Amino acid sequence: MKPKIGVVLSGCGVYDGAEIHESVFALLALSRAGAEPVCFAPDIKQRHVVNHLTGEEMPEERNVLIEAARIARGKIRPLSEAKAEELDGLFIPGGFGAAKNLTSWAFDGPAGTIEAEVLRVIREFVAAGKPVGAICMGPAVVAKALQGAPNAPTVTVGSTDGPSPYDIAAVNDGLRAAGAVAANQTGVVVDEKNKIVSAPCYMMEVELPQLYDEIEQTVGRLMQMLA
Amino acid sequence: MKPKIGVVLSGCGVYDGAEIHESVFALLALSRAGAEPVCFAPDIKQRHVVNHLTGEEMPEERNVLIEAARIARGKIRPLSEAKAEELDGLFIPGGFGAAKNLTSWAFDGPAGTIEAEVLRVIREFVAAGKPVGAICMGPAVVAKALQGAPNAPTVTVGSTDGPSPYDIAAVNDGLRAAGAVAANQTGVVVDEKNKIVSAPCYMMEVELPQLYDEIEQTVGRLMQMLA
Repeated sequence: MKPKIGVVLSGCGVYDGAEIHESVFALLALSRAGAEPVCFAPDIKQRHVVNHLTGEEMPEERNVLIEAARIARGKIRPLSEAKAEELDGLFIPGGFGAAKNLTSWAFDGPAGTIEAEVLRVIREFVAAGKPVGAICMGPAVVAKALQGAPNAPTVTVGSTDGPSPYDIAAVNDGLRAAGAVAANQTGVVVDEKNKIVSAPCYMMEVELPQLYDEIEQTVGRLMQMLA
Repeated sequence: MKPKIGVVLSGCGVYDGAEIHESVFALLALSRAGAEPVCFAPDIKQRHVVNHLTGEEMPEERNVLIEAARIARGKIRPLSEAKAEELDGLFIPGGFGAAKNLTSWAFDGPAGTIEAEVLRVIREFVAAGKPVGAICMGPAVVAKALQGAPNAPTVTVGSTDGPSPYDIAAVNDGLRAAGAVAANQTGVVVDEKNKIVSAPCYMMEVELPQLYDEIEQTVGRLMQMLA
């Protein structure tokens, strides 16, 4: 039996959903590592729709699960059906969808809200001792989900030393405000206690081959922690 | 200088646009091979919008270029700006977008229409002796573009011998009706005369690791043909 890893998508497209390259590379890396990726997304309205050509908001509505189904070629289930007892691990790609649809972090910072099913599923996996991988803005979702949990998680969203299109210092501050330890590192960071593996990916400036390698390394560390 | 390869996207999602896995894998394989992928898409309305969760048509309108920008993270230009004199090669991923937006093949077969800019760009590259890669339904677009051209192109969309979710025999018949030679093969097929490289990819039943390998091989053969 292949280990089943739940992949939590947050739409389809970096500016209002799941980052597509990160999501597809996660599916490839998981498959290559001998896992069976199982896609999930919350069945909720997207916070908004962004024209990816202009960066401007579009006057329409889209559903996170329906759009995420594009990445999954239709093979996707509502996040409410993701159960730690039926899966061996969890993986959360990035994209603004993590900070707009899974949480309200992009608008409200760490004081914002988190989708109830996202909170439930992450807490369920950590409580069950099953590994959770999170990349790009995914680690902020994990930090938000574990706010107030007994063991503060250690995660990375990047380093303030390297080139990044984003304000890593500000996200680090947010992670700390949510009670997490911000590793402030490039590369893969492993929190052995909580079985959380994180990496910055597109939070830092990165070319496609390096992006894939970083995701493959993240998946590799996650697979090593499978019970 | 890295060779620049134009990647022609037809939307974002297998059922009404460019197949996302094939498109992202093409970008990765091209980058790994030392090329610079440059994304293009026609600035036209999608033929329709499909709910990828249910497979049903949605009562809305989307633009091919704007949706394709999701795959390209905003770095994409209208297909009218793709010129053989400024690029070294062309690559056309599959998905129903190739047969719904680039051509009307999905509705009308090989007797249908092809977008004027798609026809122009493919003919321009072949006339300039610059290589064209096409996978999945991409080869049907190439066949349609070269209908009536002096040298009949040889392409593959799959083999009638292997497991496929589609009717390969029917697409082969369509290719022949468009004046092309249907190789009826799995794996990469090279038409040295026209410098066209094709492979079935998701036209056949395939797992993600094999899909990536097939695209990497297709890209490798395309790169070998660069002048």
